[in-house]
This record gives sequence, structure tokens and C-alpha cells, in this order.
Amino acid sequence: MSSQPPARRGRPGYDRETLLRIAVDVFNERGYDGTSMDDLARRLGITKAAIYYHVAGKEELLRLGVARALDGLDRVAERVAASDAPAVYRLEHLVRGSVEVLVAELPYVTLLLRVRGNTETERSALARRRAADHLAVRLVEQAVSDGDLRPDIHPATTGRLLFGVVNSVVEWYTPGGPIGPQELADAVCTMLFDGLRRPRQSR
Amino acid sequence: MSSQPPARRGRPGYDRETLLRIAVDVFNERGYDGTSMDDLARRLGITKAAIYYHVAGKEELLRLGVARALDGLDRVAERVAASDAPAVYRLEHLVRGSVEVLVAELPYVTLLLRVRGNTETERSALARRRAADHLAVRLVEQAVSDGDLRPDIHPATTGRLLFGVVNSVVEWYTPGGPIGPQELADAVCTMLFDGLRRPRQSR
Repeated sequence: MSSQPPARRGRPGYDRETLLRIAVDVFNERGYDGTSMDDLARRLGITKAAIYYHVAGKEELLRLGVARALDGLDRVAERVAASDAPAVYRLEHLVRGSVEVLVAELPYVTLLLRVRGNTETERSALARRRAADHLAVRLVEQAVSDGDLRPDIHPATTGRLLFGVVNSVVEWYTPGGPIGPQELADAVCTMLFDGLRRPRQSR
Repeated sequence: MSSQPPARRGRPGYDRETLLRIAVDVFNERGYDGTSMDDLARRLGITKAAIYYHVAGKEELLRLGVARALDGLDRVAERVAASDAPAVYRLEHLVRGSVEVLVAELPYVTLLLRVRGNTETERSALARRRAADHLAVRLVEQAVSDGDLRPDIHPATTGRLLFGVVNSVVEWYTPGGPIGPQELADAVCTMLFDGLRRPRQSR
């Protein structure tokens, strides 16, 4: 606490992008509800007035942060919805694309996944996430009826477990660490679709 | 806020068990760091003194809460460690047993999974969770070398993804809802070990 940079006055010392990135890190560490504008100003080493130069307040930073994650995930969902490939392939693309967005936008997706619905911004983010869940469940249902996915797990449960795996990655994945994004997406898809058990033909 | 029960004075109105259960619900809603003894007293409708009749303070409630989850998970790990079945079966038992504890002790496991390491109690809980992760990774390594699990996913990644699925259940599962604990454990194990894709022989 003693080594904080002195508060700069006058012209803000950050562009909006950097300000957003640092604010999102603070939200992820302390929780959005537990973070005040004073906390943000202290961490950024600027005055609250300098933050207000860029954004209307704390909730706008939340809105911009979760939008980064949601826009990426929505682009994946749109590509998948527009494809005419069989449902099982589209579901794999949805999973793979979601893992890629998660890795590329890790702090923003982490923020999104911790949103609890206390503000209008949070409720709207949750509604957009639910739309993505519904797409997954529809694809599972179609893939089961195509005979490509096993019929003995309820599609809604499958959808939950599927995104459970994908989302759990934010808890441990380190970008730039030993596992690349591609290897991670492969591991997730292989485990989900083919299982961890060694295929019988290769034993 | 206006319909809160009046604070009772004198003899505490809860046994320790009920007090713990309600405190854990409040921690899960507001976050442990964001909950004060005043918040707990308000929710319980008793005085802080009545809470101190049962426990030394907020951190003891946290310690008792996470211990409930950890004791259940440790019992599963001990059974698995003591078994002489092949590693792949022991890993399945670890997953199945963890899902069962998670469902039986849902609020306590939810609290455990949100622990961040800010207090001694939290750091000790995280250390006990890491021991369980290591057991899973050792079983994965053994099962790969037995030829029972596929060798193309790194065992540490497999361990992370495996518990990612199990732990994600706290985010959506409703005890007493349409999916029973047994059906849930079956779905998780089938997806993890055999995959969602329909087995070729049954097409």
C-alpha cells in the first residue's frame, strides 16, 4: 500500500482501453460490488475526475468490460448459427470458438462469468449469456436427433456440463503458459466429444 | 429491508448448525469479504452477542463451513486412495464421489469453491483442495500408463478439466429438482470418460 504511484492531476494518464483493462483486473480481484471509484482511482494512481473524463462511472466500466467478452462470444454464436453443417460440427465449433474467445479475452470473460445480476448491466449480460446457452441446447437436441450424440444424457444437462468445462478454464488457464490456446481447445473438444477413455481400436 | 424480524435478545434462537447454514448462505450471496457480523446478525434476526455465544467470529463460521465440504471430499479421496482397483476405476470413483458430496453439501462446497486465499482459513482450505487435485493428476498419469486413458491430453490439463466439470455443477444444480444426484453423477462420468458422441457400435 505504501508504494502506490502519486495521483496525477490534470490530463488523464491513460487511454480508455488501458483504463478499462486495469479496472477489470480490480473488479476481478475485489469483486465488482466490493470496488469503489476510490479503489479504482487509487490503483490507477489518478484522480476520480480523471476517470470520469473517460467514462460516466463504475457501471459503464462494467458494461464495457462484459461487452468485450459478449461481443466475442456472440460473433462465434453468429458464425455457428449461420452455418449449414450438421449440428454436431456446429456444436464443436461453438465450444472451440468459445474457448478461443475465453483465452483471447480472459480478464473480460472472467468478469462476465462472475456477474450476479445486481444491476441492469449485469441482468442484460446474463440475458445474453442465456441466449448462448439456448443455442447450445438446441444444437445438442438436433445432434441427438441426428444420431450423432448419445441420447442418454438430457440435452439441458449436456449444455450445462459443456459450458461448465469451457467456463472452468478461466479459473486456471495462464495465457503464454505451457498450454497454447489451440492445444487447450483440442483437449476440451476431445474430452467432451470423445471422452478421456482410450479408444478401443487403439489399445 | 423493512420486513426483517426483530432482533431477539437473551438466549440465542438458533442451534449452531442452523446458524452455520444461514451464515454460509449469506457468505455465498454477498461474498465472505463483503459480509460483516452486522449483516449476519441482521439476517439471523439476533444480536451479534447471540452469534458470539456459538462461535468466536466470522472466520470461525468460514472455517466450519469449508470444513463441512472438505471433510466430505477428503472421505472420498481416502476411500479412493485405499482402493487397489485400477487407476481408471479409482478416478471414476473420485469423480462420482465428488459429485455426490457436492450435491449433498451444496452450499458448503459453493463456499469452498469461492475461497480466494485472503485469510489463514482460506489458505489452508486451498491447500487441502490442491491435495485432492494432485490425487486426481496421479490417478490420470497411472491410468494413461495403464493404457486406459488417452495419452494425447496432458494429465495436468485432464485433472483441471475434470474438476472443472465437477465444480461447475454448483453454478446450476438444484437439489430436489428434475435431475437426481445419481443421474447427475452418471451424466458427468459418461461425458468425461466416454464422451458425448454416440458410440459407433450403437449407430
